[in-house]
Amino acid sequence: MSFNTFGHIFRVTTWGESHGPALGATVDGVPPGVPITAAQIQHWLDRRKPGQNKYTTQRREADEVEILSGVFEGVTTGTPVQLMIRNTDQRSKDYSEIMEKFRPGHADITYFQKYGIRDYRGGGRSSARETAARVAAGGLARAALAQLVPGLKIAGYMVRMGRDGIDRSLFDFQQIEQNPFWCPDADAAARWAESLDALRKSGNSVGAVIEVVAQGVPAGLGAPIYAKLDTDLAAAAMSINAVKGVEIGEGMNAAGLTGIENADEIYMGNDGQPQYSSNHAGGILGGISTGQDVVLRFAVKPTSSILNPRKTITKAGEPAEIVTKGRHDPCVGIRAVPVGEAMMACVLLDHILLHRGHVGVNQGVIGVGD
Amino acid sequence: MSFNTFGHIFRVTTWGESHGPALGATVDGVPPGVPITAAQIQHWLDRRKPGQNKYTTQRREADEVEILSGVFEGVTTGTPVQLMIRNTDQRSKDYSEIMEKFRPGHADITYFQKYGIRDYRGGGRSSARETAARVAAGGLARAALAQLVPGLKIAGYMVRMGRDGIDRSLFDFQQIEQNPFWCPDADAAARWAESLDALRKSGNSVGAVIEVVAQGVPAGLGAPIYAKLDTDLAAAAMSINAVKGVEIGEGMNAAGLTGIENADEIYMGNDGQPQYSSNHAGGILGGISTGQDVVLRFAVKPTSSILNPRKTITKAGEPAEIVTKGRHDPCVGIRAVPVGEAMMACVLLDHILLHRGHVGVNQGVIGVGD
Amino acid sequence: MSFNTFGHIFRVTTWGESHGPALGATVDGVPPGVPITAAQIQHWLDRRKPGQNKYTTQRREADEVEILSGVFEGVTTGTPVQLMIRNTDQRSKDYSEIMEKFRPGHADITYFQKYGIRDYRGGGRSSARETAARVAAGGLARAALAQLVPGLKIAGYMVRMGRDGIDRSLFDFQQIEQNPFWCPDADAAARWAESLDALRKSGNSVGAVIEVVAQGVPAGLGAPIYAKLDTDLAAAAMSINAVKGVEIGEGMNAAGLTGIENADEIYMGNDGQPQYSSNHAGGILGGISTGQDVVLRFAVKPTSSILNPRKTITKAGEPAEIVTKGRHDPCVGIRAVPVGEAMMACVLLDHILLHRGHVGVNQGVIGVGD
Amino acid sequence: MSFNTFGHIFRVTTWGESHGPALGATVDGVPPGVPITAAQIQHWLDRRKPGQNKYTTQRREADEVEILSGVFEGVTTGTPVQLMIRNTDQRSKDYSEIMEKFRPGHADITYFQKYGIRDYRGGGRSSARETAARVAAGGLARAALAQLVPGLKIAGYMVRMGRDGIDRSLFDFQQIEQNPFWCPDADAAARWAESLDALRKSGNSVGAVIEVVAQGVPAGLGAPIYAKLDTDLAAAAMSINAVKGVEIGEGMNAAGLTGIENADEIYMGNDGQPQYSSNHAGGILGGISTGQDVVLRFAVKPTSSILNPRKTITKAGEPAEIVTKGRHDPCVGIRAVPVGEAMMACVLLDHILLHRGHVGVNQGVIGVGD
Repeated sequence: MSFNTFGHIFRVTTWGESHGPALGATVDGVPPGVPITAAQIQHWLDRRKPGQNKYTTQRREADEVEILSGVFEGVTTGTPVQLMIRNTDQRSKDYSEIMEKFRPGHADITYFQKYGIRDYRGGGRSSARETAARVAAGGLARAALAQLVPGLKIAGYMVRMGRDGIDRSLFDFQQIEQNPFWCPDADAAARWAESLDALRKSGNSVGAVIEVVAQGVPAGLGAPIYAKLDTDLAAAAMSINAVKGVEIGEGMNAAGLTGIENADEIYMGNDGQPQYSSNHAGGILGGISTGQDVVLRFAVKPTSSILNPRKTITKAGEPAEIVTKGRHDPCVGIRAVPVGEAMMACVLLDHILLHRGHVGVNQGVIGVGD
Repeated sequence: MSFNTFGHIFRVTTWGESHGPALGATVDGVPPGVPITAAQIQHWLDRRKPGQNKYTTQRREADEVEILSGVFEGVTTGTPVQLMIRNTDQRSKDYSEIMEKFRPGHADITYFQKYGIRDYRGGGRSSARETAARVAAGGLARAALAQLVPGLKIAGYMVRMGRDGIDRSLFDFQQIEQNPFWCPDADAAARWAESLDALRKSGNSVGAVIEVVAQGVPAGLGAPIYAKLDTDLAAAAMSINAVKGVEIGEGMNAAGLTGIENADEIYMGNDGQPQYSSNHAGGILGGISTGQDVVLRFAVKPTSSILNPRKTITKAGEPAEIVTKGRHDPCVGIRAVPVGEAMMACVLLDHILLHRGHVGVNQGVIGVGD
Repeated sequence: MSFNTFGHIFRVTTWGESHGPALGATVDGVPPGVPITAAQIQHWLDRRKPGQNKYTTQRREADEVEILSGVFEGVTTGTPVQLMIRNTDQRSKDYSEIMEKFRPGHADITYFQKYGIRDYRGGGRSSARETAARVAAGGLARAALAQLVPGLKIAGYMVRMGRDGIDRSLFDFQQIEQNPFWCPDADAAARWAESLDALRKSGNSVGAVIEVVAQGVPAGLGAPIYAKLDTDLAAAAMSINAVKGVEIGEGMNAAGLTGIENADEIYMGNDGQPQYSSNHAGGILGGISTGQDVVLRFAVKPTSSILNPRKTITKAGEPAEIVTKGRHDPCVGIRAVPVGEAMMACVLLDHILLHRGHVGVNQGVIGVGD
Repeated sequence: MSFNTFGHIFRVTTWGESHGPALGATVDGVPPGVPITAAQIQHWLDRRKPGQNKYTTQRREADEVEILSGVFEGVTTGTPVQLMIRNTDQRSKDYSEIMEKFRPGHADITYFQKYGIRDYRGGGRSSARETAARVAAGGLARAALAQLVPGLKIAGYMVRMGRDGIDRSLFDFQQIEQNPFWCPDADAAARWAESLDALRKSGNSVGAVIEVVAQGVPAGLGAPIYAKLDTDLAAAAMSINAVKGVEIGEGMNAAGLTGIENADEIYMGNDGQPQYSSNHAGGILGGISTGQDVVLRFAVKPTSSILNPRKTITKAGEPAEIVTKGRHDPCVGIRAVPVGEAMMACVLLDHILLHRGHVGVNQGVIGVGD
């Protein structure tokens, strides 16, 4: 399993299991000279932290991050930054049943088939707990981006829970932080609260669609052909637990459009930068950013751990039934929002650093400022 | 632009422009001992070849592949295989207008912004012509897979053109090769022929959804956390020209399901291998293959080159209009089918080779045969 | 500085500074099923530990390793193993003078030129303290090798201190652990003790040559052309602090031989494996192991931190003199011995794992057992 | 064998066998905007070309390079550059004997052990003919360097043949191009001509030491810890056929110096750049360039193909004798000179591009200009 690293220049290696002593991110390629404190990273971790309301798992982790290296007198030095989070509330006894049985929809069976051994406690390495390390790394990436591209903003939010989507005409960025669903539409948030409550009580769960938007991305980011900006974002999103679909701009709906409908016509803006009549492309053409908003969307499947009994087999191959009694989220999509933001931050920083190594001896007339 | 390579062990580097002297794939990590001929690879290239019917570009390329290295006495030696295709029908004059203007929806403007220079002839490196090299590499991957996993089958087909999808109850694998759309539903193929004809005449274009299925994939493939099988497939698909969305199994629709609906329950099959009641997961759990069909789907946007004039700017930043008169496909999705198959073949072979390096000193009781 | 990782499949990322809170190794690609305890890794760290005799720095670090992930019930699971060592005896005050001045022969000036910032305490990231993390990773690699290639043995030792080399006719493996120099020649060890004592007292230092031999290496390891076994060993050795030269087999002396002298003639051994009349090649031909002893040698320059004043400049560019008063080894080569062994262990394990992914559908008649 | 690529950003993948249809280099990460012609690259290939005098193999290859991609209107576009060289004088019949027997000192046996198959014609992939592709890539790297670091100069030369070294007091850069040995000491060149003639006639061969110096290298290049400039140079040199030892600056002799002798004291130069009293370090401290000359040295073993019969075994394991009758160089070190230069050019360009991605939000006061 030697692929616990992502990124080309800004390289994040996450490590740790759900119920081991600790987990974290070894972050390499951090630009030197970035002011950073543990408190700044803690801010992002706190947003993701479980146990904050009745819609997310009741597991209570302090999730306190420690910076073990790479920072000197409050500033990054360019050496690897180790971000460690100790696991505190492990309650291993909850997981005794799944020691012998494979939970449907979980990686229990495939890890066992692949490795012949697995840390069954809470899903071990395949637990969504791993994403805490990504959020920590994302906090560091944001700090670097703040220095390198001052105007850049990243915002994640839920646009659909189950079959109930937001009304784009009610979209309000201010709303996002004001409900437990990171929902930009207050009406939808109210509906979701009700329906999720019912689902939770019935021991069921539901999926969701998350959108992450980056504003102020300079044109010219992306490394064709196989490290296009959208390629890397797709990989980043698909690597998040429970994600089954990824979209850029129009996404799957692009298939339903005609060429006339889909064309983003080009104008010259007053600021001397190209402008577009629309953004079907999601801010990326040929794998390279256009300067428009970069729009990433992904679907998270419903939580597999549910209180309704499901058929399965044991390690020995015997038929069995399983009810996953642990502390789980009825909609894991909620907690995927800060993770999606973190991945966007990491990918953008990586491509900003990459771009510097790629540009040539001359620059385009409209060229990326850099 | 130093990321023209994909794969971890089976590494494919594509090179070449639409209107340069040649293009090709430098394929590293090919297992030794695989029987292969240029004719076998040509077979797959011929399926992709343009100019075969009125629905694909009238550019006529022989697309004849030459094996320049890595094969000795008809068998791979384990050294890099160079697959070269000479460009023959280049007709550069068709592209004179786009020398100065950026085509909306194309990578013209972003390549120029990034590199300050671009080969404007036919889109240069950003042309879908690059995918010929992928198809050639995919042919080689298939030959290796035939040796390593004899039962494995890969099939790509179109499941939607514009807003018109296939009827899954009419799905027939035999149909796929019998219509110009690689459509498994004969009725849909007939409808598409009619509607695409109309679109083409009106100078418009349309998007499509492609599905690629791999049957007989052994359980245990995939390298969590950041080289999961689905992560790598998502990246592979998103790297194809004009793709805007990628799905595994239920894909975006997974968001609309409840945990009860989405559960793939597990049984023990008569062959001593785990079986599943359904395949919402698309054959992948926790990034590792389950042994079920691996199901990848992706959306291709409508061809950006259309005969209706669109607004744009020139290199100098002046407003302009553009009509792309070249030879273009009204539905580029059609030609993306063999490309999707090729990417599936390459990713699966890569993960089979990777898996060998990852497995440990013991193996699971249900373990991948290997 | 995003290149703190080495290895292709068995990937080791070291992190941490000389005087930060901790340092360690994030080890990815560890085969599952390897029994390992912190005590086993501690064994190798203790061999390297400073402050054990008058010839190595008097800094006293407990150098206690903690396994934070990747091991479950005493066995590796295939997930990343985090090996952390807390820094305990940091005494930052010793280093106040070097805050403003660059020490000749050290990386002080180049880190500052590259990054514009540096953790000056004890050399920060460029300190040889980083090698503790390598030794920890090497301990883990040895445990895996013990499972995968039971007969394999790795031994490092000093063959030259200053201009005084060992007498090969007195070579005795048993001697290595019986003197503070890891010297296989008892007479040389006695001479070195005397001369090093004199050097230390005079505030001077001296270089050394280290040899690392691996016995029982299977034939067939190495990935030509650019990840040959010798290429990777050369990089591994050259990456160790203060190393200025690397040799395989005859090394630099190969230049002085004729083709007749240098030929290792081939015989068929009684065990059905090829044997060789000599080992000028150092166990590697064309970058691939032959099955003979793999012989790596490297030169370590004299410690740059000496008590004799040297001319330098300050950060502001003013001329200055510097005497490095810290706790330093008069011959850093001594402590490079366990580091060289660790690198050999890591590279060999990596190539064993790699080889599995490279071999093909058939195998040579003499083929690597595997 | 999926490691036919070197470099981090400037990535060169070589392909092709000694007696296949062609060989070449797929060069990715080439900065856009570099003027380049086939003739410029041909210039460097011609220097390496065999058959130019009696001291190098009489094989006559035109070695004509073709640029197949990545260059548009005489300038690089940032897309992969394919450099192809057709094999013309293959004379396969010369190699019939080695089909069944393994040549001592060659990779015949190890390739067979690893892959179970080998292209025996002229050594196939393990032939030094592969280095023609490196020289071509090096020519491209030099063109990019000429744009990026105008003052940078790279020169390779032989400093020792067998046991006979040059006299450094007679060193003359002008001499290098005036004798068949790239020897900077005219007296040594005369001696070597005589002794090599004798060796050639007696069917024997001899080794050599090559030195490559880069002048005008900016300070700050190198990516610690595992992609230090010296680490990458060591790997680059060791990957060249027949190289057994690699040195930076003092090299192996550093072991024989004391700390006082080895210290390169630092001064402030009149140009506001740090200067050094000496260059024992070979221009690299802590893996990062100092701005002094970068000095790389490597030992090439004597040609293994000699006319004196040597003992070996056949593929079937039977004892045999072999005399290698082909067209071979009595001192392969001669032809390693342009290869060493090419590797230096590629590594330096790679690190210049890498450095851009690594530098931070601030820069050192003495910092690399860039």
